[in-house]
Amino acid sequence: MNTFPDVYLDYNASVPLCVEAINAMQPWLTGSVSNPSSVHRSGQRSRAAVERARGQVAKLLDCQPSAIIFTSGGTEANNMAIWGGLGWPPHGHLVVSSIEHPAVMEPAVALRDLGVEVTFVPANNQAVVTLEAVRAAISPNTRLISIMAANNEVGSLQPAEKIASIAHDFRALFHTDAVQAAPWTNLQPLALASDLLSLSSHKVAGPMGIGALYVRPGLDLPPFVRGGGQQGGRRGGTEATALIVGFGAACARTRAIRDESVARVAKLRDRLETALLDSIGGAHRNGGESRLPNTCHMSFAHCDGNVLVARLDLDGVSASAGAACASGVAHASPVIDALSLPAKYRDGSLRLSLGYETTESDVDRAIHAIPCAVHAVRGAHLEVAR
Amino acid sequence: MNTFPDVYLDYNASVPLCVEAINAMQPWLTGSVSNPSSVHRSGQRSRAAVERARGQVAKLLDCQPSAIIFTSGGTEANNMAIWGGLGWPPHGHLVVSSIEHPAVMEPAVALRDLGVEVTFVPANNQAVVTLEAVRAAISPNTRLISIMAANNEVGSLQPAEKIASIAHDFRALFHTDAVQAAPWTNLQPLALASDLLSLSSHKVAGPMGIGALYVRPGLDLPPFVRGGGQQGGRRGGTEATALIVGFGAACARTRAIRDESVARVAKLRDRLETALLDSIGGAHRNGGESRLPNTCHMSFAHCDGNVLVARLDLDGVSASAGAACASGVAHASPVIDALSLPAKYRDGSLRLSLGYETTESDVDRAIHAIPCAVHAVRGAHLEVAR
Repeated sequence: MNTFPDVYLDYNASVPLCVEAINAMQPWLTGSVSNPSSVHRSGQRSRAAVERARGQVAKLLDCQPSAIIFTSGGTEANNMAIWGGLGWPPHGHLVVSSIEHPAVMEPAVALRDLGVEVTFVPANNQAVVTLEAVRAAISPNTRLISIMAANNEVGSLQPAEKIASIAHDFRALFHTDAVQAAPWTNLQPLALASDLLSLSSHKVAGPMGIGALYVRPGLDLPPFVRGGGQQGGRRGGTEATALIVGFGAACARTRAIRDESVARVAKLRDRLETALLDSIGGAHRNGGESRLPNTCHMSFAHCDGNVLVARLDLDGVSASAGAACASGVAHASPVIDALSLPAKYRDGSLRLSLGYETTESDVDRAIHAIPCAVHAVRGAHLEVAR
Repeated sequence: MNTFPDVYLDYNASVPLCVEAINAMQPWLTGSVSNPSSVHRSGQRSRAAVERARGQVAKLLDCQPSAIIFTSGGTEANNMAIWGGLGWPPHGHLVVSSIEHPAVMEPAVALRDLGVEVTFVPANNQAVVTLEAVRAAISPNTRLISIMAANNEVGSLQPAEKIASIAHDFRALFHTDAVQAAPWTNLQPLALASDLLSLSSHKVAGPMGIGALYVRPGLDLPPFVRGGGQQGGRRGGTEATALIVGFGAACARTRAIRDESVARVAKLRDRLETALLDSIGGAHRNGGESRLPNTCHMSFAHCDGNVLVARLDLDGVSASAGAACASGVAHASPVIDALSLPAKYRDGSLRLSLGYETTESDVDRAIHAIPCAVHAVRGAHLEVAR
């Protein structure tokens, strides 16, 4: 139910709330909902709804419901995995890639201040972390390896299952940030291979403010947000009934329509990408062959990506120059750095990310608008330089 | 808008969502809401709504909007305050009371494992932390003192402003968990006296899953949930637009109707309390004179509080034996321990907490139901003992 008046091509930043989640949440957004930890009947009604939704999230991963810990989002899930995976107090060697989301990268940097040894594994110029690079980083002291399932900026798929296997050879734990992959890949084999896996509700058309960490059954993970005994003592804080119910409904929907959507959206993305490469000179497609089917990431020579996004916005096309959370940041992201682009391309990134609701007409409008916008931004650049 | 069919006297566990918050949230629970960190116009509409709500929360404390950091709830706000108040890496001496919420207590215990020196200040038998006890705990190495504004179980008000002044004499920071006090006291003087102050949305009739930490302007607090540069780099994670908007509306409502509600509810609470003490033998009122106006906490001799709550639930009265987050826990809470009750009273706690929507009729029904229920539970106890 994308009701944007414009062409929304920023699904990697946030997916509009789906009608299934909206409808599921409504009964829990009234004046009669109480704390799911309360023992009285109104509390128990909330409890039952929370547990039903936990089952829906678990089904997306084909795991037991008790393996799902609700968090406030993908960011907290990643923080929890990185901290928890190192035990308490945190110790040992942590391996993460240099193209992880800041929600993995920043906790890793913070833990380094506490004396944890951290290795940042570089990605190749297609923004892929190779098995060789991981093998070179790992040591007998390695306790946790965290590699995302798919990169949020360029969409490159990572060999996460194979890296999990390497981690386990070294008796290390494996965490994967599957936030961006969730709408586009069957996560069941990946969850089976992983010890920890992060999800975000609003990236699968559920509400913002909720997410989950899958914790392999039997793994005793220290809590990150500590407090009351909620969720078996693994995450303090009142469980947000309405959000959890919406997230559950969004997971059920994702499971139901993912495969058909992947096929349809991949075709739209390919058509968009081919048309842009054909019509815009000095354009470079990033991310290699193995990518999320919805993500088109390009760099345009002699073009300022932030200005381009602003210009496209005026033309009714919502896109982004990089990850939403880094918007407005002047320097190139570590992901763009990894691509090793020639200097003239480095400021000209554009991320177009499609969703289940993207239409042929959206793509037509984008194909029409983007070449003109790139041309205009390049012209303005020359004006300024003159 | 309490639409419970029963008599709901568990407002300290969760306050039903108010109609102001429901109405404010609705436009943000549709398929057209995007990431407030996105630079395009639909992102900027979310941004404007988030910032307007930040202003509404700030107004409750009479502080600048930029002093408000949104978190996933009171629990995360407390975790953030305790971790952040000790700097990065965390160091120095931490002072907390022994009757703090687990969301303060558990991080304190965890930090002790990292080498932070922690002192737990005992409360007196009215569940009040005295200035003398704080003075005895403090040392030149003390970096942070955290004392709640009002206790969530028995409702005892703490001399938080005076303790803040002691903290500042020692050049320590002062944090207060004002989650439970927020609907009932003017927090403006307390915020002015404090460096850090925690709020929870669902305790002021806003949605679950959102809260805030007030951070005194100029105080450079390390983040707790780390990630993208959201909220000035102070809290990673996409800001949950709908929740934030609902929280803002709930704060505006609290500010508008708090004073009249306090006066009305205090009378209802006093009538309830007097009636129960008159009609039930072996009843003890806990918490001293200076208490939240909505909280009635009692202990009944020879009575199992958990059984009593279950029985009252069948009679249509929703109450609790202690804090919701500790429900089902067999042992007495540290707060009950602090009361130093005679042994026969120790298992028989009942917390009745009223709200802005509590009516005369609710109180009448409770006055009718509770003495019968206590009598029945005591009888069953004697049956079993025989």
